[in-house]
Amino acid sequence: MAVSEQNVKETYDKLCEKLKDLSSLQGISGLLGWDEMVMMPSGAAASRGAQKAALAGVVYDKETDPELGQLLDTLRKEQKGLDEWASANIRDAHKSYVKATAIPKDLAQRIARHETDSYQAWVEARKASDFSKFAPYLQKWVDLSKEKAAFIDSTKPAYDVLLDNYEKGMTSARLDEIFVQVREGLVPLIAAIKSKIGTIDDAWVKGTYETEKQAELCKQVALDLGFNLENGRLDVSVHPFTGGTHPTDVRMTTRFKQDDLLDGLTAAVHETGHALYEQGRNLNYDGLPVNSSLSMGIHESQSLLWERMVALSLPFAKYLKPKLAAHFPEKFGGEVTAEELYKAENVVRDVSLIRVEADEVTYAMHIVLRYELERGLMDGSVKVEDLPRLWNEKMEKYLCCVPPNDAQGVLQDVHWSMGLFGYFPTYSLGAMYATQIYLRSKDAIPGLEEQIAEGEFKHLKAWLNENIHKVGSLHTSGDELMKAVTGSVLDPEVFLGYIRSKYTALYSL
Amino acid sequence: MAVSEQNVKETYDKLCEKLKDLSSLQGISGLLGWDEMVMMPSGAAASRGAQKAALAGVVYDKETDPELGQLLDTLRKEQKGLDEWASANIRDAHKSYVKATAIPKDLAQRIARHETDSYQAWVEARKASDFSKFAPYLQKWVDLSKEKAAFIDSTKPAYDVLLDNYEKGMTSARLDEIFVQVREGLVPLIAAIKSKIGTIDDAWVKGTYETEKQAELCKQVALDLGFNLENGRLDVSVHPFTGGTHPTDVRMTTRFKQDDLLDGLTAAVHETGHALYEQGRNLNYDGLPVNSSLSMGIHESQSLLWERMVALSLPFAKYLKPKLAAHFPEKFGGEVTAEELYKAENVVRDVSLIRVEADEVTYAMHIVLRYELERGLMDGSVKVEDLPRLWNEKMEKYLCCVPPNDAQGVLQDVHWSMGLFGYFPTYSLGAMYATQIYLRSKDAIPGLEEQIAEGEFKHLKAWLNENIHKVGSLHTSGDELMKAVTGSVLDPEVFLGYIRSKYTALYSL
Repeated sequence: MAVSEQNVKETYDKLCEKLKDLSSLQGISGLLGWDEMVMMPSGAAASRGAQKAALAGVVYDKETDPELGQLLDTLRKEQKGLDEWASANIRDAHKSYVKATAIPKDLAQRIARHETDSYQAWVEARKASDFSKFAPYLQKWVDLSKEKAAFIDSTKPAYDVLLDNYEKGMTSARLDEIFVQVREGLVPLIAAIKSKIGTIDDAWVKGTYETEKQAELCKQVALDLGFNLENGRLDVSVHPFTGGTHPTDVRMTTRFKQDDLLDGLTAAVHETGHALYEQGRNLNYDGLPVNSSLSMGIHESQSLLWERMVALSLPFAKYLKPKLAAHFPEKFGGEVTAEELYKAENVVRDVSLIRVEADEVTYAMHIVLRYELERGLMDGSVKVEDLPRLWNEKMEKYLCCVPPNDAQGVLQDVHWSMGLFGYFPTYSLGAMYATQIYLRSKDAIPGLEEQIAEGEFKHLKAWLNENIHKVGSLHTSGDELMKAVTGSVLDPEVFLGYIRSKYTALYSL
Repeated sequence: MAVSEQNVKETYDKLCEKLKDLSSLQGISGLLGWDEMVMMPSGAAASRGAQKAALAGVVYDKETDPELGQLLDTLRKEQKGLDEWASANIRDAHKSYVKATAIPKDLAQRIARHETDSYQAWVEARKASDFSKFAPYLQKWVDLSKEKAAFIDSTKPAYDVLLDNYEKGMTSARLDEIFVQVREGLVPLIAAIKSKIGTIDDAWVKGTYETEKQAELCKQVALDLGFNLENGRLDVSVHPFTGGTHPTDVRMTTRFKQDDLLDGLTAAVHETGHALYEQGRNLNYDGLPVNSSLSMGIHESQSLLWERMVALSLPFAKYLKPKLAAHFPEKFGGEVTAEELYKAENVVRDVSLIRVEADEVTYAMHIVLRYELERGLMDGSVKVEDLPRLWNEKMEKYLCCVPPNDAQGVLQDVHWSMGLFGYFPTYSLGAMYATQIYLRSKDAIPGLEEQIAEGEFKHLKAWLNENIHKVGSLHTSGDELMKAVTGSVLDPEVFLGYIRSKYTALYSL
């Protein structure tokens, strides 16, 4: 029996109704998370746990609803009259449905139980700086993750299946290509910079900066960049993050340290980048999968575009300098130039042990190292017990420094303690996407750097809204989006070229 | 076949699991509501609406889950081995189940639609001060409410069925008894006081009070009364209210006006009373119906006990006076005595048109008036079109003043626009419960008034925790709780005696 366009439309509408309902519940889950980090009184932890579990149960039931599966099956066979956005919705909703229904309850429960145990073990192990205390928990994560991946798609390498959760459409074969190129480009550059360490003066920036004034400055900067308080909030939390419940309700947080002005400032710009991506989503497809962020890497590209390509540039230093002078006249009111500020912001440190403290040059090598290790864990070529040794060897080779202990080495990141394999690469993919996107925007927007120097960010924001934010998840991968926006898939050479030229100038290499 | 204790226990455990899950979801609903009033950015109203609807749908499905009905049926037949708390859970869960399942979907949808229309019509009518614009909407509420009541229990008067939603176990027959007594006691007293209006000086309290200082003072008072910030928050919102997600997460709000110090202060104490009831719940029965508040009237008794019986008393004025002097030395630093403060706090105004602005003497008559009218609407003895006339006649008779227009008369309250019939009486029941409970606590706690004067509230709080808060919904009605706590069902004469003696002294009647 032929299916009429009308039938397809009705089935699709039913699907959308279910997907929007699910999206609303996920928005509520976002509120619970934000509230827990920013507002919840400490004594409510247990009841909040029960609330999150109750909501997760409801969401799970809706995600695995057999009626949803039937609607998707029908629509995958016949999409007469539907446009590409609708097709993308069906495609992504089906993918989520397959993932949600693939994992047996028993495995899901074992994973949930291991989350708490493993996190605790990691906290203890890091405190004692003793990897062996965490090793058995990590081994169990490796086993559970392989088991899970096999249920989702046993025809693909386990690592690729996991990777897809964070970076849609990405594979380890493609990452190998990318990261070998990055490694070969960066390792000699880092060595060259290390020989010039100390040639840029940034000691003058050190000092004590009132946190209230930092917060005021950062709010002003976030609003200048385009963060919209009608559709969002700005609060303070222990760790900066961007959450919220919906593109019309995006909540970013910042935090400030008295003795580190630039850290709070770059974190605020970083979160603003995430927040602008969220606020910029296309409300014509509100509540549908096609309107969600494409991937973690693309999300990170938006934070890093504003943080590194914009806020760490010389034009931005020209915009920032008078603002700093107004808030902290004793430090910035005198003869400090935008050039001096720019240089101080971009200092590379001699020792780069900790990923989250790394600059834009060394950061990628922290990721390459982690990628090589976690990929090896998944395909069996790396054993858990060898991790500390391999970690330190790679640190020496890639970053010319060896961690003095496990806490500052293999135990520094929380990710593996939560079973997040395939997550790390997205940080560096984000940095590379950011460079490529930014360079394209510079071609598209005449006088962009002059605009930045004058504090006019609206053209860049509008361009990102149009080309990245509103496009949501229409494409199937970061590469596809890059192709659509910049004319080429991700090209690490663009990133390497940017880094080389910037730091050759800064360090007179 | 005989049912073993073990079977009963297992069935009961299953019931509790479902009820706790439901309670967690209701807690989430509390968070959505609080957030909307206190935190949500304005542009998020539409998405929040969708989130609330999605969650309401989930809650409805769980409330009407046939498995829940089966568990309840089984347990209502056999409760071998269960204690009185378990029985109360079964009793109240069954009552909620019957109510949730009684109303046909079609009627529920008509009610939901009318909520928005009617509220808008009321806003417009009040703005135009024209009752006729609201009359058809009110008539529809009367019809819908009768229809709804008949579905829940067609053997009882519609008004009694509605009343039970707010004041469990209360009937209109009992309210008639109570309110006739209140009316006969208060009307002559009010007339007597009116002849002495102006004999208490409170002009000196008027002035401008910095709101930040008011907030600081009120926070101190709330903490002194026993509000626990480990299990709650204190914020500012347009209308003060107490919400939250759980007894370990109680969120109260206050608001302050520069030109009205006492208003913000009494509102803060009022909300603290609600909050202490919430924080005081018995966590042994966490998430179960027996652990919820007994009724709106009992909830209000806790806010009014602290607001009126404690904070408007002379001993409290002794505690408060030095605090006021510390925060507002220009006004309270001089020769003002606690007695003068006490008198100023308890002034009765000549004209009492607006319920929410009424003092503790006239307040009850505003309620008697509304009760008589809404009861008449339900039994057909009062016609919607006659409301403005009847309202004004009763105002003159009970409160010696006539509203100049509908906006300040019959249109002043939002309740009827939302179809809330049977809600008003709980305010006055709360005041009467409060008096009776407070007088009992005074007998039970030697030196209570001296403690209050010294700012020591912990014994009173502990007594209320033990006798009211922890008891939750164990009893079937406010009367039953009153009997258990004070030895007698609600006795309006206790309230009248308190009012008479206090105001006879204040106004030298």
